[in-house]
Amino acid sequence: MSTSWNIKPVSRENSDAILHKINMKTKPLGALGLLEDTAHQLAMVQGTPEITINQPTMLVFAGDHGVSEEKVSLTSSDVTRQMVLNFLAGGAAINCLCRANNMALKVIDAGIKTPINDDRLIIQRIGTGTRNLAKEAAMAEEEVLLALEYGRRLAKQLAAEGCNLLAFGEMGIGNTTPASCIMAALMNKPAAECVGRGTGISDSQLKHKIAITETALARIGSKNDPHNVLQEVGGFEIAQITGAMLGAAEAGISILVDGFITTASALLAAKFAPACRDYMLFAHCSGEQGHQAMLEALGATPLLQLGLRLGEGTGAAVALPLLRSAAEFYNNMASFESAGVTL
Amino acid sequence: MSTSWNIKPVSRENSDAILHKINMKTKPLGALGLLEDTAHQLAMVQGTPEITINQPTMLVFAGDHGVSEEKVSLTSSDVTRQMVLNFLAGGAAINCLCRANNMALKVIDAGIKTPINDDRLIIQRIGTGTRNLAKEAAMAEEEVLLALEYGRRLAKQLAAEGCNLLAFGEMGIGNTTPASCIMAALMNKPAAECVGRGTGISDSQLKHKIAITETALARIGSKNDPHNVLQEVGGFEIAQITGAMLGAAEAGISILVDGFITTASALLAAKFAPACRDYMLFAHCSGEQGHQAMLEALGATPLLQLGLRLGEGTGAAVALPLLRSAAEFYNNMASFESAGVTL
Repeated sequence: MSTSWNIKPVSRENSDAILHKINMKTKPLGALGLLEDTAHQLAMVQGTPEITINQPTMLVFAGDHGVSEEKVSLTSSDVTRQMVLNFLAGGAAINCLCRANNMALKVIDAGIKTPINDDRLIIQRIGTGTRNLAKEAAMAEEEVLLALEYGRRLAKQLAAEGCNLLAFGEMGIGNTTPASCIMAALMNKPAAECVGRGTGISDSQLKHKIAITETALARIGSKNDPHNVLQEVGGFEIAQITGAMLGAAEAGISILVDGFITTASALLAAKFAPACRDYMLFAHCSGEQGHQAMLEALGATPLLQLGLRLGEGTGAAVALPLLRSAAEFYNNMASFESAGVTL
Repeated sequence: MSTSWNIKPVSRENSDAILHKINMKTKPLGALGLLEDTAHQLAMVQGTPEITINQPTMLVFAGDHGVSEEKVSLTSSDVTRQMVLNFLAGGAAINCLCRANNMALKVIDAGIKTPINDDRLIIQRIGTGTRNLAKEAAMAEEEVLLALEYGRRLAKQLAAEGCNLLAFGEMGIGNTTPASCIMAALMNKPAAECVGRGTGISDSQLKHKIAITETALARIGSKNDPHNVLQEVGGFEIAQITGAMLGAAEAGISILVDGFITTASALLAAKFAPACRDYMLFAHCSGEQGHQAMLEALGATPLLQLGLRLGEGTGAAVALPLLRSAAEFYNNMASFESAGVTL
């Protein structure tokens, strides 16, 4: 059983013309560095003479993880729910960073342990947290499909409403373990290279986290297609983010990837449909071990290295102004000719 | 002859209280990385319970350089004037990036070759470009003093009008040569480690640029006090930026340092008055060789590494939103206690 994705690869036809437009701006060749690459990619995706950034929206998906009973995190699953309440009250880091950077924020319950009754929360619950991936498959096959579909529908709905940039964040105590398992399974890497300290666990917790990852990898074996990987070691929020990225690409809009967890979703999305990669921009490289290698596997150069390791989409929120800067110079900076500047 | 600077070192008294406030926010310890350091420094400088960023203003100082007759740059001095006209018309990179990031922009003629008659330009001309530092002192002693004073007065005037963050940019064809000389003289480094390719010069031009720098360094000898260094190898815009940084620190407001040239000014300012360093934030590490070493000499961790090598203040303009993000989380992010989140 699988879902099929209808994603059009971004046309390379305009690539040279876009590069020429950038190179004729009043600056030394390449002197705006990564802002030039960002403008180039946005212009390729949008296929219009000017780049627009419309209704940029941060989607924070929350879910709980059975594996948290293994004490792979500093805190318990209860904190997932507490943090969702914090999001709804406007007090978390991602609220502040979305406010500071003029980004809309939507919070999705993808399946936290105990539901929250609040109209501002988008309810797309798959269950009351996944099963413990240390012992069994985290999700059922139909749960994976439902989660992907929930994500896809939400992304496509927002695109239909006029949003052309979706950023992704997450909250789920314990979710660096599934993300490390996904990385190891999809990239065929040993667990020790993929497992990091998350919120700041001790040496013995780290050892246990690696052992759990190895157990899960043994169960996956060579069946490392993205669907089976999600089923064995995924999470409700991770699967919904994956579906939403694929949905965004189906709708032809840009995807702004945040940290370690959402990059694992990006890796999954690119396995489901390689053309999805064309729509992705990468906000930052976090402090979590393994993130850099995942970014390399995706051929990604992240915009920021701020030592962030918070999740929630925080890196993507602070990267948004760089996209606006890229759009503004691409649209409105003078050319040598128009400004009368001698080459 | 010298100017005395009246700069109060930033009080360390509140440092622990500020750090405590940051650490009680609903996030793992240190998880906001450089945004936490930025908030900490802004809060120290401002000494108030909340951080504000008022009327952030980019000052772009333009000046011409006698050394440009040595062909140390891809273009001629005429381009300085053309680019100032481009600034006034709103078409340059710095215009776009200030617009995109809600920053005021003021352009100062510190001494370009041929004057421009335009009310929007702030006229603080020291002369029609410096003398050729390859052959003689670039500036006269009284020119240095006047340039420092012009910069100081402008910064203090803007601070008096309510601005509490000044960013600095520059335009001056040939000005990576004086900046490299300043770096070499103040840091006692060999010329080859300080000279880079600027706008993209050839191997033979680079060799010539190094030879020029060595000649100027020999003339300076052990007389590497900041005043004499400015006189021998400085520039009108570099000296005015130095004075403006010192003036900003006298007024107790924050300084946002941009790329290679403005970091040379920052190095000079910190030599004139070490307490000035307390007020500095560093926007980015550019692609120009030597910038990283200058930043290290100042004990600075730059916010961005975007491969920018354009000057004009572009790195500082794109870094401004990070300061706003730092302020917003510092002011408004919930604490574990206020949000009811379990430690």
